[in-house]
Amino acid sequence: MSTSDSTNSKIVALLSDFGCRDAYVGIMKGVILSLDPGIRIVDLTHEIEPQDILSGAYVLYTAWNHFPRGSVFCAVVDPGVGSRRGTLLANINQRYLIAPDNGLISLLVRMIPDSRAYALRRDEHFASSLSADGGSSPSSTFHGRDLFAPAAALCAMGFTDRIRGRAIEPVLLPGVIPEHGPNSVAGKILHIDRFGNCISSVHSTDVAGLRSQHEGKFRVQAGAFRENRLCRTYADVPVGAPLCLIGSSGFLEVAVREGSAAERFEITPGQPLTATAAEP
Amino acid sequence: MSTSDSTNSKIVALLSDFGCRDAYVGIMKGVILSLDPGIRIVDLTHEIEPQDILSGAYVLYTAWNHFPRGSVFCAVVDPGVGSRRGTLLANINQRYLIAPDNGLISLLVRMIPDSRAYALRRDEHFASSLSADGGSSPSSTFHGRDLFAPAAALCAMGFTDRIRGRAIEPVLLPGVIPEHGPNSVAGKILHIDRFGNCISSVHSTDVAGLRSQHEGKFRVQAGAFRENRLCRTYADVPVGAPLCLIGSSGFLEVAVREGSAAERFEITPGQPLTATAAEP
Amino acid sequence: MSTSDSTNSKIVALLSDFGCRDAYVGIMKGVILSLDPGIRIVDLTHEIEPQDILSGAYVLYTAWNHFPRGSVFCAVVDPGVGSRRGTLLANINQRYLIAPDNGLISLLVRMIPDSRAYALRRDEHFASSLSADGGSSPSSTFHGRDLFAPAAALCAMGFTDRIRGRAIEPVLLPGVIPEHGPNSVAGKILHIDRFGNCISSVHSTDVAGLRSQHEGKFRVQAGAFRENRLCRTYADVPVGAPLCLIGSSGFLEVAVREGSAAERFEITPGQPLTATAAEP
Repeated sequence: MSTSDSTNSKIVALLSDFGCRDAYVGIMKGVILSLDPGIRIVDLTHEIEPQDILSGAYVLYTAWNHFPRGSVFCAVVDPGVGSRRGTLLANINQRYLIAPDNGLISLLVRMIPDSRAYALRRDEHFASSLSADGGSSPSSTFHGRDLFAPAAALCAMGFTDRIRGRAIEPVLLPGVIPEHGPNSVAGKILHIDRFGNCISSVHSTDVAGLRSQHEGKFRVQAGAFRENRLCRTYADVPVGAPLCLIGSSGFLEVAVREGSAAERFEITPGQPLTATAAEP
Repeated sequence: MSTSDSTNSKIVALLSDFGCRDAYVGIMKGVILSLDPGIRIVDLTHEIEPQDILSGAYVLYTAWNHFPRGSVFCAVVDPGVGSRRGTLLANINQRYLIAPDNGLISLLVRMIPDSRAYALRRDEHFASSLSADGGSSPSSTFHGRDLFAPAAALCAMGFTDRIRGRAIEPVLLPGVIPEHGPNSVAGKILHIDRFGNCISSVHSTDVAGLRSQHEGKFRVQAGAFRENRLCRTYADVPVGAPLCLIGSSGFLEVAVREGSAAERFEITPGQPLTATAAEP
Repeated sequence: MSTSDSTNSKIVALLSDFGCRDAYVGIMKGVILSLDPGIRIVDLTHEIEPQDILSGAYVLYTAWNHFPRGSVFCAVVDPGVGSRRGTLLANINQRYLIAPDNGLISLLVRMIPDSRAYALRRDEHFASSLSADGGSSPSSTFHGRDLFAPAAALCAMGFTDRIRGRAIEPVLLPGVIPEHGPNSVAGKILHIDRFGNCISSVHSTDVAGLRSQHEGKFRVQAGAFRENRLCRTYADVPVGAPLCLIGSSGFLEVAVREGSAAERFEITPGQPLTATAAEP
């Protein structure tokens, strides 16, 4: 049995801070299906905290390589909608990103070597695709509907060349790469998940050196959290106990088994996390 | 490149107040796919506040024309389930609505001229489609599963004539059309979105006359909110500043850039909003 | 008109406690589509309270027979991830379940006679399906992505024999079957839905005997709730009034019309509910 050939499948994965109370996301889907009803649309999440680009950048990265090659990710966390912030089309490890150029691409650029970014060029067909009936002009407040959704559809349909502008250096968020000291690594909390697990910018590769120094022992601190053992999984500690582990996307994570580390240790997004080689 | 022919695509878009904690929506999808696994199902939203028909009517309208012609919208906000309230099938601008006849159609009827409504006729095949295994009788509490989902599937499959009953005048919600005074328009808040933006029943066409009176200046009031300038987009004001603009669906909207207007100005759904021509 | 032949449709229905803030569910979908982009993926719910296996078991049951035969349900509520808890593949009424062996199957086993369970055998192809690019090793914290999603995809693709291990007796949750006394039935609250309706483990068949004793009259108690009439639907009582009815899945349910019974009567999941034959 071999993995199905997915070259003929057109997949658009959506990520946004639009939430699920409104039809914003549903409208984007209508726009995409109006351009090509054969596109498969998948939701990554729409519950990124409003305007939290850093968390969006992290969540986007975690999904990337689990989607078929050729998939198009359309990510809209866009506090600058209507301003002069740029927009981009990126090609990263044979998958595509359509997004505002505001840093959403940061974790992808940090973690995946092969990335190329271009300005998104407004295709002359965008205007006519604004509604299935055509005719209206693009809004100043909902580029998800009027710009990013049609661009993602065109990209999935194979018309990438129609919307790809000049090559650009994309905007990168500060603080996405942790700082390395002689005996420590200083990062920050990128994302707090549904369970209250606090995921940091410190990758397993960042602490590999520290861990080899003193028989694998090192100390992790974030908010009121202090631990000096790295667990393999949540079930390594009793229910209710705190732990520190490498999470499923390879980043250092602070957790409480069957509880919320964010609540227990009052950890918030953006807060510092440091890993230090423990004295022997 | 032309927009794909979507006449062969069968799309059902779902809107409800069922939320996402339960499998109510998933069950409706199972029922639809049991009738025809080729139907594409799209969620508009299921987070309409429980029994808030007005908000549902607004959100439904905002999505309508962005979906391909022939799409079927199945909207279930249904406080009267099990009572004698009617049900309807409507044909509006070449798209279909399946819903309880309780006012969910109101904004569509107000905004889109070409609408025809019919009583939903219970098809003899509904009973056998209640579960993939057939056999059970319709419930008195879950018409989404037992009535609206199969009707939407049949409509998408092209069997509209099997479920279309007599022509009816649908129930319309009061207060959906704002009141026009000599120098003012009085509407109300239809919907508060995820960001705390407060969207009113006052459409851009309602205030076109007011704005032309005094060099485009006019005053908008809702709760503690008072502004007398109409912005084009959120980025027209500094972060944290209030503004008033025509939102992406054409309605007057009260907002705070990167903040919540609903919280800041204590605005709740149904509250009055007035637009007044400003003295020169 | 006959129901479409669904034997060729590949459907995977997902249920979890992963919530919608993260991309956990989206990643599972990426994994499934990487194995076969033709699979139709449907969300049941991902808002099961974290680690609430009982509620997950109930919600899973309510959806089961409404999906086409051959559908694969992938259910992940998994507090024991990374521990030695087993995993299972079950065949129940011509539909499949892929899940941890922790009791999620309990309501299905109780309510549907024809069920067979097997240990889930780790297919040699799992490893290569961990990402669309292959190569990584399975995580200890995200079996939804690394084990259950690929197993569900393989099952939907017809490769059930590759992942079906030895026959097992699955773990069943205690308290799923109510206790019958001479004049009463004692169950518990399985699930509180979005509207605050409290659904119990007492099925309509459990109280059929009680109801026939005294002209259909009996008394229901749960928390501060006391009623002695069984209604047919919410609209049988005035807005704001409490009622007791057989819900859409056949279980005894405590409700308040257009209100929350859970809040009004301080009912929480797992709390006892008793139905007693009323004195004449």
